[in-house]
Amino acid sequence: MDKHQLKQLFRLVKEQRPLVHHITNQVTMNDCANVTLAIGASPVMTIGEKEVKEMVRLADALVLNIGTLTDSIFTSIVLAGQQANENGIPVIFDPVGAGGTTYRTERAIELLEKVKVSIIRGNGSELEALLGGKSVTRGVDEGKITKAREEIATQLAKQTGAVTVVSGEKDFISNGKTTVQLSNGHPWLSKITGTGCMSTSIIGSFAGTKCPIFDAAIVGASVIGIAGERAYRKLREDDGIGTFKMKLMDEIFFMDGERWVEEVHDQ
Amino acid sequence: MDKHQLKQLFRLVKEQRPLVHHITNQVTMNDCANVTLAIGASPVMTIGEKEVKEMVRLADALVLNIGTLTDSIFTSIVLAGQQANENGIPVIFDPVGAGGTTYRTERAIELLEKVKVSIIRGNGSELEALLGGKSVTRGVDEGKITKAREEIATQLAKQTGAVTVVSGEKDFISNGKTTVQLSNGHPWLSKITGTGCMSTSIIGSFAGTKCPIFDAAIVGASVIGIAGERAYRKLREDDGIGTFKMKLMDEIFFMDGERWVEEVHDQ
Amino acid sequence: MDKHQLKQLFRLVKEQRPLVHHITNQVTMNDCANVTLAIGASPVMTIGEKEVKEMVRLADALVLNIGTLTDSIFTSIVLAGQQANENGIPVIFDPVGAGGTTYRTERAIELLEKVKVSIIRGNGSELEALLGGKSVTRGVDEGKITKAREEIATQLAKQTGAVTVVSGEKDFISNGKTTVQLSNGHPWLSKITGTGCMSTSIIGSFAGTKCPIFDAAIVGASVIGIAGERAYRKLREDDGIGTFKMKLMDEIFFMDGERWVEEVHDQ
Repeated sequence: MDKHQLKQLFRLVKEQRPLVHHITNQVTMNDCANVTLAIGASPVMTIGEKEVKEMVRLADALVLNIGTLTDSIFTSIVLAGQQANENGIPVIFDPVGAGGTTYRTERAIELLEKVKVSIIRGNGSELEALLGGKSVTRGVDEGKITKAREEIATQLAKQTGAVTVVSGEKDFISNGKTTVQLSNGHPWLSKITGTGCMSTSIIGSFAGTKCPIFDAAIVGASVIGIAGERAYRKLREDDGIGTFKMKLMDEIFFMDGERWVEEVHDQ
Repeated sequence: MDKHQLKQLFRLVKEQRPLVHHITNQVTMNDCANVTLAIGASPVMTIGEKEVKEMVRLADALVLNIGTLTDSIFTSIVLAGQQANENGIPVIFDPVGAGGTTYRTERAIELLEKVKVSIIRGNGSELEALLGGKSVTRGVDEGKITKAREEIATQLAKQTGAVTVVSGEKDFISNGKTTVQLSNGHPWLSKITGTGCMSTSIIGSFAGTKCPIFDAAIVGASVIGIAGERAYRKLREDDGIGTFKMKLMDEIFFMDGERWVEEVHDQ
Repeated sequence: MDKHQLKQLFRLVKEQRPLVHHITNQVTMNDCANVTLAIGASPVMTIGEKEVKEMVRLADALVLNIGTLTDSIFTSIVLAGQQANENGIPVIFDPVGAGGTTYRTERAIELLEKVKVSIIRGNGSELEALLGGKSVTRGVDEGKITKAREEIATQLAKQTGAVTVVSGEKDFISNGKTTVQLSNGHPWLSKITGTGCMSTSIIGSFAGTKCPIFDAAIVGASVIGIAGERAYRKLREDDGIGTFKMKLMDEIFFMDGERWVEEVHDQ
């Protein structure tokens, strides 16, 4: 990867301020809206079946997240996705909890049949479930996986044509041919809810700049990890997970191309 | 405006602790509940069609916000609004995203036909959309407006009989005859989601004291701006948007009549 | 109560990391997820009627909260509760706003008829309402009660077979025979939304370890109070309610058996 080209994305997103439409989950939507703003884009979070298509027509990217899925939300998700395809804007899909219940796995696969997705981000068991694998997601955490994460990333990219991001201690980002491996992060990131969802929103923010999809996935997937490392380093004695979350937002807000080039760990 | 009379509202709201019923959006409802508590009132956020009327009967003010509108939420909004009119408590309406989609603009106008609203707060394009204008709201941000903000405030007040608050770099608060202009605020307030929704909740909290509606709108509309200025001044090096949001809550919590008189900038 | 036995629960929950399924309210669900993680358990928050049963089958405890109740959410709540009973996992019920509206009081009582609940936590008027009493809940705050809180705790425990937690300045935890009284807490806890809901999530996290239900209720009910005291002591001049909430999360995250033994106030 060419870091000096990729780093331009931080400037681009702040200059263009893309409108990122989200249909996301009720648990983390406030945090998703705030990281979208922090990175420089503009979030909107309409869910109504009667207006999502019209809202998507104004948008530069669409983030879909099934964390609190119902039949009604799924209807809105499909409508929004199809409109995004019609408009040619990127669709970023976070299959939260796929592999946890049959309903969720089936809806996630159904979505991939009905909507052309540009980027899929999730943990190993969520993304293996989309391959039709025998993974088990434990609630929203990665459970049992039967393939290596890198293999899941590559296979799902080949099968769907989407760029895939398998998050974990190491992140694998694949377009089916090339797979980039990133190793930023901090264990405390798994102690606050929604860091995965937030990562998807940041990826969506970069994708809204019309940059290459693979670039948006790589840069977007790395932001939370780098910001988490920086936030942890700035904690004082007695600072716990509440302070860490606040400083994580600070660091996302201050992230720019220069910091990113210095601190991203690819191998 | 008579600052020394208006400043009494801070004491009043803390003494009376009015119950402010909200039907608001899923993105910012936690923040709206917290600012309502911080200013001294008590929030409740029932949404069920079968109970909103009964809950509104206990309330001192009703805040309606269409940020994540669905047909089912709109039904609850109309029921709650009609009950509030029956009980003679003020209705504060935040037409989030009006002018963004046809569905939302039409429902907002329908609400004004079915419910007598005391205060309408939004950005310029949201409020121009309620005039039947050709404004365009970009997601939830002010987009294209064809009239001056002050004119939008005055015209909509005349047309609806409500007090209007057009938020922006300057805020215009109008009862159709008199228009007050406020200029507190900080650019970082637009970098966190929901500062508009929070402002509406604070206005609703003051309105719940049974003070004059115009007074509640003026004082309420100014709180977030003043608190934002104070919060920004207290940041240390390296503090970003996460710390700013936390300190914004601190400053709303500590705001009182004396600080307000010193720091509010009218015109 | 045997503090040195009870303190083991802090270690247990971190070792086992129980999966705590929540069907909770939209206002506080992000905070509930975060405290569940902070105490060492794993939250999941599925609401869809078609998947809650399957998700509950993976879970170690089920938290039910009616803060933003609708008919559809109630259907999911009953399905989830019945599945939890079938699997023999504990059900922790937070009847937010019972005694506030007829709809809510009736659904809460209906739930107790359809689902065997292990722990019920709420304020005095919410729990008196479940006794069929004449209490009045003011929104989500304790309103008028006609019995002493201790009596409400004991009677409801006897009537339902559940362990009860009546929260207030003093907390009463009863299994119908023994009632434990705790007196930790700080007035600022009532100035942030959702501390009751968070307490219920923490109780559910301990209950997920398969420890005795009464133990989970005692330890769980005390955590927010102790953490609130600690958070307040650590505030600096000018720190307000925003900083307090952040530090509350810090203190929940750092709470362990040793601190708990030193700081819990039972009498």
